[in-house]
Amino acid sequence: MASPDEAAPTLILGIDPGTRVTGWGVVSIDGSEPRAVACDVIAPPAKWPIETRLAHIFDALREIIARYQPAAVAIEEPFVGTNVRSAMAVGEARTVAMLAATLAGVPVRHYAPAHIKRMVAGYGQGEKTQVREMLRLQLGMAEPPDDLNASDALAVALCHAMQHRADALMSAGKP
Amino acid sequence: MASPDEAAPTLILGIDPGTRVTGWGVVSIDGSEPRAVACDVIAPPAKWPIETRLAHIFDALREIIARYQPAAVAIEEPFVGTNVRSAMAVGEARTVAMLAATLAGVPVRHYAPAHIKRMVAGYGQGEKTQVREMLRLQLGMAEPPDDLNASDALAVALCHAMQHRADALMSAGKP
Repeated sequence: MASPDEAAPTLILGIDPGTRVTGWGVVSIDGSEPRAVACDVIAPPAKWPIETRLAHIFDALREIIARYQPAAVAIEEPFVGTNVRSAMAVGEARTVAMLAATLAGVPVRHYAPAHIKRMVAGYGQGEKTQVREMLRLQLGMAEPPDDLNASDALAVALCHAMQHRADALMSAGKP
Repeated sequence: MASPDEAAPTLILGIDPGTRVTGWGVVSIDGSEPRAVACDVIAPPAKWPIETRLAHIFDALREIIARYQPAAVAIEEPFVGTNVRSAMAVGEARTVAMLAATLAGVPVRHYAPAHIKRMVAGYGQGEKTQVREMLRLQLGMAEPPDDLNASDALAVALCHAMQHRADALMSAGKP
């Protein structure tokens, strides 16, 4: 059995990647309930060339990873719909996030939007406002984050925390 | 008028991105004719997780850019066909290449496969073997590169060199 009480808190960094706005959120998984630690967005000016925006996102994520030293990075997978161009743009930001984590030696996990919604909102209706309210309650926040991208980043971090706990319970023989 | 005779050679790094095989090639554009300087492939083991492969490609390209100090990096654009998954995979390697160049302060240019073929093979037939033979002749090589990805990387570097010269001639008022 792993000890849940260690000096440094165990943190999960969630990332909702995008070339215009990349949301990030840190969740602490020590104690009985997960808790939101911090969240914000990285939003390089839209007029910057794509490579400059990606370098900005990369530098910002490297700095966030160095500051919080997360045990894992959970990334929301791009929704691959009919618009290949927009899927490619999300893919660029997602690649930068993968790279920032891997170069820092932090394991990366990917979660599909539908999986995140199911884990966070359970059997509730999957409306955006309801998912945010469920997230707020589960992370013990007075107010949900103002920004939807920051909120989505906390949701993917919480999703990983719940998945991680479910896997641990399963491997311990408890259904 | 810029002086064409400087102590350090002016080099263009061409990159043909891929998560399985990334080709790279360096072309010198000093003197009257462009010349191949070096080319090779970066081929991380296919069984590695995607994030480890991308980090390997990133580190290798950073090292190549530091070694050759190119004036520009020319990247072959992914062909976005009906297979979104394969376009996304090429996009990941392309993002890593953009990031490696931008973080080193080297300007990045993108070229579509059809444009590269047209620049390198001119009005000739665009068959693979013929493009390689045209490339060999134009870069003064005794033999074409063994690897098609390395060859494609030299082609995109040569394409940028030709485009650059055409733009310079145009802006100097010569048709």
